[in-house]
Amino acid sequence: MARRSGGRDARRAARAGAVLQAAPYLTRNIPPRVMISAEGLEIIEHNADRILSEIGVEIHHDATLKRFRDAGAAVDGTRARFEPGLLRSLIATAPSTFIQHARNPERSAQIGGMATVFAPSYGSPFVRDLEGGRRYASIADFENFVKLTYLHPNLHHSGGTICEPVDLPVNKRHFDMVAAHLRYSDKPFMGSVTAGERAQDTVDMARLVFGEDVGDRTIVMSLINASSPLSWDATMLAAAEVYAANNQACVFTPFILAGAMSPVTPAAVTAQILAESMVGMAAAQLVRPGAPVVLGAFVSTMNMQSGAPTFGTPEPALIMSAVGELARRLGVPMRTGGQLCASKVPDAQAAYESAAVMGPTMAAGTNFVLHAAGWLEGGLTIGYEKFMLDADQLGAYAKVEQGFDLSENAQGMSAFHETEPGKHHLGSAHTLANFETAFWKSDLADANSFEQWEAEGARDAEARASEAWKALLATYEQPPLPAGTDEALTEWIDRRKSSFPDSNV
Amino acid sequence: MARRSGGRDARRAARAGAVLQAAPYLTRNIPPRVMISAEGLEIIEHNADRILSEIGVEIHHDATLKRFRDAGAAVDGTRARFEPGLLRSLIATAPSTFIQHARNPERSAQIGGMATVFAPSYGSPFVRDLEGGRRYASIADFENFVKLTYLHPNLHHSGGTICEPVDLPVNKRHFDMVAAHLRYSDKPFMGSVTAGERAQDTVDMARLVFGEDVGDRTIVMSLINASSPLSWDATMLAAAEVYAANNQACVFTPFILAGAMSPVTPAAVTAQILAESMVGMAAAQLVRPGAPVVLGAFVSTMNMQSGAPTFGTPEPALIMSAVGELARRLGVPMRTGGQLCASKVPDAQAAYESAAVMGPTMAAGTNFVLHAAGWLEGGLTIGYEKFMLDADQLGAYAKVEQGFDLSENAQGMSAFHETEPGKHHLGSAHTLANFETAFWKSDLADANSFEQWEAEGARDAEARASEAWKALLATYEQPPLPAGTDEALTEWIDRRKSSFPDSNV
Repeated sequence: MARRSGGRDARRAARAGAVLQAAPYLTRNIPPRVMISAEGLEIIEHNADRILSEIGVEIHHDATLKRFRDAGAAVDGTRARFEPGLLRSLIATAPSTFIQHARNPERSAQIGGMATVFAPSYGSPFVRDLEGGRRYASIADFENFVKLTYLHPNLHHSGGTICEPVDLPVNKRHFDMVAAHLRYSDKPFMGSVTAGERAQDTVDMARLVFGEDVGDRTIVMSLINASSPLSWDATMLAAAEVYAANNQACVFTPFILAGAMSPVTPAAVTAQILAESMVGMAAAQLVRPGAPVVLGAFVSTMNMQSGAPTFGTPEPALIMSAVGELARRLGVPMRTGGQLCASKVPDAQAAYESAAVMGPTMAAGTNFVLHAAGWLEGGLTIGYEKFMLDADQLGAYAKVEQGFDLSENAQGMSAFHETEPGKHHLGSAHTLANFETAFWKSDLADANSFEQWEAEGARDAEARASEAWKALLATYEQPPLPAGTDEALTEWIDRRKSSFPDSNV
Repeated sequence: MARRSGGRDARRAARAGAVLQAAPYLTRNIPPRVMISAEGLEIIEHNADRILSEIGVEIHHDATLKRFRDAGAAVDGTRARFEPGLLRSLIATAPSTFIQHARNPERSAQIGGMATVFAPSYGSPFVRDLEGGRRYASIADFENFVKLTYLHPNLHHSGGTICEPVDLPVNKRHFDMVAAHLRYSDKPFMGSVTAGERAQDTVDMARLVFGEDVGDRTIVMSLINASSPLSWDATMLAAAEVYAANNQACVFTPFILAGAMSPVTPAAVTAQILAESMVGMAAAQLVRPGAPVVLGAFVSTMNMQSGAPTFGTPEPALIMSAVGELARRLGVPMRTGGQLCASKVPDAQAAYESAAVMGPTMAAGTNFVLHAAGWLEGGLTIGYEKFMLDADQLGAYAKVEQGFDLSENAQGMSAFHETEPGKHHLGSAHTLANFETAFWKSDLADANSFEQWEAEGARDAEARASEAWKALLATYEQPPLPAGTDEALTEWIDRRKSSFPDSNV
């Protein structure tokens, strides 16, 4: 694994067509693939407005309800209805792009615009590796994934609840997760959303490590899921309230298993996503106008016989493309997709499905890609080998988005004059001048001959990835914290942890 | 595997958003993803013109050279140079779309325009299955793949040299391959290109089976590869001459391992592809103006350390997108891509790479996709399990291209009024009315719970595909030929085979 260079140099190298090392995010130079007409988008927007005004949304959080009522919504019990255009006008104060600052400034990431940021998988209670099989995740696994994500040049963001450390009490595990992101990585990260006070703990811990001068810069981004269909719960809205008040970013994401949490048809799913996410984004703007928000969309289909979630299906590809367009029309960043699959192991199914989600994720012009590496089994498991295989693929996706190099060197007319028809270009001056950066190279694919592959043990991709994650983790060195910071963090966490009893709710 | 219905019904069902059964081709309803600017395309076209006029192309076929000289090219020995615009004006007689007639008229395929046709892998000397491992291909394997392709609803075209029947003499195996396509399938197929007289044998055999009234309708499409860089050999041009003279279609394809058969930079590769393919297409037009031609582009990258071909890399994605645009500007159909990989087995590498070629193949608006199923190991091997896994994925690619359904039913506003916020949509009238066709469903993916999957033997995708191809092949029934045709074909082949000795050149 090559050593990563500084952000600006890396970006410059990326633009020049060199192998991507470790830019803090990738810059897309090619337009998205738009799978829906402008008229279609207007229909979807109109339908979202109708859903919001005719049916409304359940909001189980009094402070949010009160703010919506004060802003002009019709509130009846926990149901809020919004006249067409109301939420859109509230969201107008949200930034179209923002910077999520990392504790290493060279790794601060732009969220929005032509930037795309890759973060690992999120929320799995299980982990899997080739030798150990599937088992409950622990804080040791969590820390391993933070370290692997820190080390991997293709991941820009440390993520959040990469896996659930189920060996720790539910009401205190956020301290250890946030501390791991702050200590073991210097990439941007995500905070706790399982209670308002845990969100506050996240902000307080981050401030402690970033230093007093951090002010209200955005240093945490968090995942706020709707309780689809058309409902937002108290826990998530309380966490969002804390983050917005502190100018921290929230990704408002309808989590939709189509057919259960929404109708089955893509046009209906898309209108619901827009309606739900607009409610969340507007709620944040009412807490603090200008607070950074992201329009999120997690969509899977299901097997209508068994009810099992399915991934890599065509319908989410269409929905993601439409949501990307809708977010750009609304003027906010968009999150969707990832390398999602239903497979239990990192086999061909896992890879086909992951690619069938990730390709459309990129084609949609997605700004923030959670679950970009590691996801197995509908998200119940994060796999060490899957993580490595997915992260490797991210390098290829990033290079496609650099687009076509049309420099004089890339046009290569000298090469045609240099090499005669029918002769090979292997040793030509043009080839020699360009071969090092000409082609993206996978770290894990085996392109050798059958005979050589067989002589080396006939290992499949999973076996090679198993070796790779252990080798990468063995290279880990902690990115240094300012003197005294680690101790202050430990002291702060110990004090907070001992201030209330352990609990598993 | 569902029984396939007639072409027109299937197309209507496909347009209505139903699960694709067996349309004779798919119709794309969404635009391609264009990865290069219009200015960039003009530069590429200009560079192709410069290559053709300044350097020229080696043409090792006297009749073609003479026709080019007569048409105004500057011919010096075997080198032909073309003034800018000359080839483009010759290609103007080529059709922008054409029908390749199948012996079952419901399976006749449109080549070009918004149509996309999927054909299996081509040219592998080896086959692989899970139980038998890797071995030389035989005519029995060839016939198995013709039958599997006939049976699979996601493949529209029977392909050509699906694998090399190395148990038959080189100079006579084309009889058995063409006969297998004609006898065991009623989908369109590809002919022999390894000698002019074998092309003539292909046309004669096809005419025998299609009947006397076939006239000069296009009933065979064949793959004519350039000897890149900038060279066309006598064998391929002799075959192309026969096909064009008979109004049969040729896919003129530079076969490029970038860095060896071309410069390494995508802009240069693309200009070379355009230059080379234009020479082939113009040559066909000089034989018979209006003969159907396809602009082909096979591109892989290479590992610049080992020289091994690599697949699923970003650079061909960019090149394919540009070639698609160039073909549309030129007004001819385009062939590229497939589910290509370097992996020796159908593991995660195989699937990631195949998807990383196939996604961009579709996004490029490709009209004819050879190697859409089965390819392993840089094409040296076709795998039975890989074939089934790839063919399954084709169903998802096809459904994405149907695009967004914005009918009143798909907008689903009634569903939002029917199902309260916070309640699930599983049993709603809208869900019940739509669930059967709502989501594409893989035949091979396992979306069950971990526990169920484990109880069923913890089988990976390859193991399930192994069972699937044997089960599918067991359902095979030969599509009937008109009375006497089979016997006439046998008699014709026997007479031709006995008219010259076996040879392995």
